[in-house]
Amino acid sequence: MAPLPFFHLIQDELQRAEALLQEQEPNQHPAITRAVDHLLGSGGKRLRPALVFLSAHLCGADPAVALFAAAGVEMLHTATLVHDDLIDGSLMRRGAETLNARWSPAATVLTGDYLFARAAYWVARTENPRLVRRFAETLMVICNGEIHQMFDGRGNVPTFQEYERRIYAKTASLIALSSESGAILAHADEEVIAALRVYGEQLGLAFQVVDDVLDFVADERTLGKPVGSDLRQGLITLPVMLFLEENGDHPALQRILAHGPSDDAVREAVQAITASGAIERALQIARAYVQEAGNALGSFPPSEYRTALLELADFVVRRQF
Amino acid sequence: MAPLPFFHLIQDELQRAEALLQEQEPNQHPAITRAVDHLLGSGGKRLRPALVFLSAHLCGADPAVALFAAAGVEMLHTATLVHDDLIDGSLMRRGAETLNARWSPAATVLTGDYLFARAAYWVARTENPRLVRRFAETLMVICNGEIHQMFDGRGNVPTFQEYERRIYAKTASLIALSSESGAILAHADEEVIAALRVYGEQLGLAFQVVDDVLDFVADERTLGKPVGSDLRQGLITLPVMLFLEENGDHPALQRILAHGPSDDAVREAVQAITASGAIERALQIARAYVQEAGNALGSFPPSEYRTALLELADFVVRRQF
Repeated sequence: MAPLPFFHLIQDELQRAEALLQEQEPNQHPAITRAVDHLLGSGGKRLRPALVFLSAHLCGADPAVALFAAAGVEMLHTATLVHDDLIDGSLMRRGAETLNARWSPAATVLTGDYLFARAAYWVARTENPRLVRRFAETLMVICNGEIHQMFDGRGNVPTFQEYERRIYAKTASLIALSSESGAILAHADEEVIAALRVYGEQLGLAFQVVDDVLDFVADERTLGKPVGSDLRQGLITLPVMLFLEENGDHPALQRILAHGPSDDAVREAVQAITASGAIERALQIARAYVQEAGNALGSFPPSEYRTALLELADFVVRRQF
Repeated sequence: MAPLPFFHLIQDELQRAEALLQEQEPNQHPAITRAVDHLLGSGGKRLRPALVFLSAHLCGADPAVALFAAAGVEMLHTATLVHDDLIDGSLMRRGAETLNARWSPAATVLTGDYLFARAAYWVARTENPRLVRRFAETLMVICNGEIHQMFDGRGNVPTFQEYERRIYAKTASLIALSSESGAILAHADEEVIAALRVYGEQLGLAFQVVDDVLDFVADERTLGKPVGSDLRQGLITLPVMLFLEENGDHPALQRILAHGPSDDAVREAVQAITASGAIERALQIARAYVQEAGNALGSFPPSEYRTALLELADFVVRRQF
C-alpha cells in the first residue's frame, strides 16, 4: 500500500507497529522467531493496523495505546492465516511457502496458538476491557464461521445471505474490529463507534468480494497462488454464484457440484466464469459495499483522516493483488 | 473432588461455573455444542475453577466476577487439551474418546481455536486488564513450552531443571494463574498476589509430577488411557529420570533412547520403573512441592478458605487418578 496518498499520515506509526510485531519474547523458541519472520516478511498489506491508526487519529485516541491494538489485530490476522492454511492444506500464500508447507501439522497448530496468545497479549496491553472483549468476540465469530464453512460449506451453492454471512465472519468482522478500535480507545460516543464499525464491516465485505474475484482473474504471479483455488477446494464464491444464475447448466460446473472438483472441470469453469459478466457484477456489488462504507463516515467533519479512510475504501476495490 | 471436606464452601459457585461453561453462544454451530458437551462431560476435576473461587474468597474478591475467571481458566485448559490430543495423536483421555479420535484434524484445530476465543471472552468479562494480560502471558508460556518439547524434548533425558521448566509451562503456569486470579480480582497487595501465585506454581509442579507418576502406576481403567503413554511418545518424565540415575544401563530403556519406543521395550521399562524406588522418590519430590505451596500461605491468617487450599494441595499428592 506504500504508494497510496494517505500513507504518509501514519507512516511512523506503521513502522512502530512493524517493530512491535517483530519483537521477541524472552525465552521464545527460535522456531517461533523464524516462523514470525517468515509470516510477516511475506508481505501483508497491513490494512488492519492502518485502520486502527486512522480511526484512532479520527477520534483522538492516544497513538501509543493504538499501537498495541494495531499489533494485536495484525497478529490475530496472521494467526488465523496459519491455521487456515493448515486446514485447507495450502502450500502457497502471497507467493511464499506457507508454514504448513514447511512444518508438521503439530508445529503449525502450536505456532498458530502462540500467535493467538501474542495477539491477545498486545490487545490486553491497551488495558481497555471493551476492546479486549470485542477482540475475543471477533475470534469467536471467525472460528464459528470457519466451522460452519467446514461442516456445511463445501460443494453447496450458498444463498447470497449465506455468502454474506460467511465473508462477514471470515474477513469483515476483523476489519470492523480494526476500524472501531480507535473509537473504542478514544472512549468516543456510541454513534461514533457504531459508524466506524459499519464502515469496517462494509469495507471488509468489499475486500473479501474483491479477493474472491481476484481468485479468478488475477495474474498467478501477483496473486502468489494458483487461480481458481477456492473452486478447487469446493468453495462456491460470489463470481460462481452470479455465473450460475445465468448458466445454471454449465457442464463443468455441474460436474464440480455433482462429483467434486477435478482439475479439468476447474480449468474449464474458471475460463467460463472469467469470460462472463459475473466478474463485473461481483465488482459492482463490492463497489456498493464501499459506497456504504463511505456513507457511514458521512457525519464526521472533513479531515485528512476521514479522507484517508475514504481513499482506503476506494483502493480496496481498485487493487489488483 | 466431590468428597473432599472443603468442597461445600464453593459448591454453589462451582455449579454456576459449570452452567456458564455449558452456555451456548447464539449462532454457535451444533458441532461446537456437541464438542463442548463431550469435553466437559468427560469429567475433569475442576481443580482450576476451585482455585479461583477459594483464592477469591480468601482475598475478598466479588464471586460474581470470579465466576468469569473460573470459566475462563477451565475453558483455556480444555482448549489446550484439544490441541494437545491432536498433536500427540491421542485417542483417549479420562476414559473417553478425544475429539481427535472422532473428528478430522481441521475440525479439531478450529474447535480448539473457538474454545480459546471463548476462554478469552470470559476472562475479558472480568474487566480486569491485569488478569487479561496474565491470561495471555500464560497462554504464551504454555505454547512456547509445547514448542520446546516438540522440537527438543522427545527422546532426550532432560536435566531436572529442564524437566521443571517443562512441567511449569505445561501445568503449573495455568494453575498459578488460577490461584492468583482471586487476589488480582480483589486488587490485593502485591505480596498477597505473589504468595497465591507461588502457592499455585508449587501446587502445579506437584500436580504434574503426580500425573507423571500415575502414568506408570495407575490402574488403566481409572487413568482412562494406557499406562506408559509418555514413554511411548518418547517423553522422558521424572520417574524415568530417577530410574536412570541408578539404572543407567537398563537394556529396555537404552533401546528406547537409542532407537525410539517399541511396544516391547516400553512394556519392559514400565515394569522395571514401577518396581523400582524411582516412584517413591518422585512422590517425595511432589510432597516437597506441596510443602512449599503450604509455606506460601503461611502469612495468611487462619480461615476456612486457607484450610481448604492446604487440603487441596494435600489431595493433589494423595490422589489415585
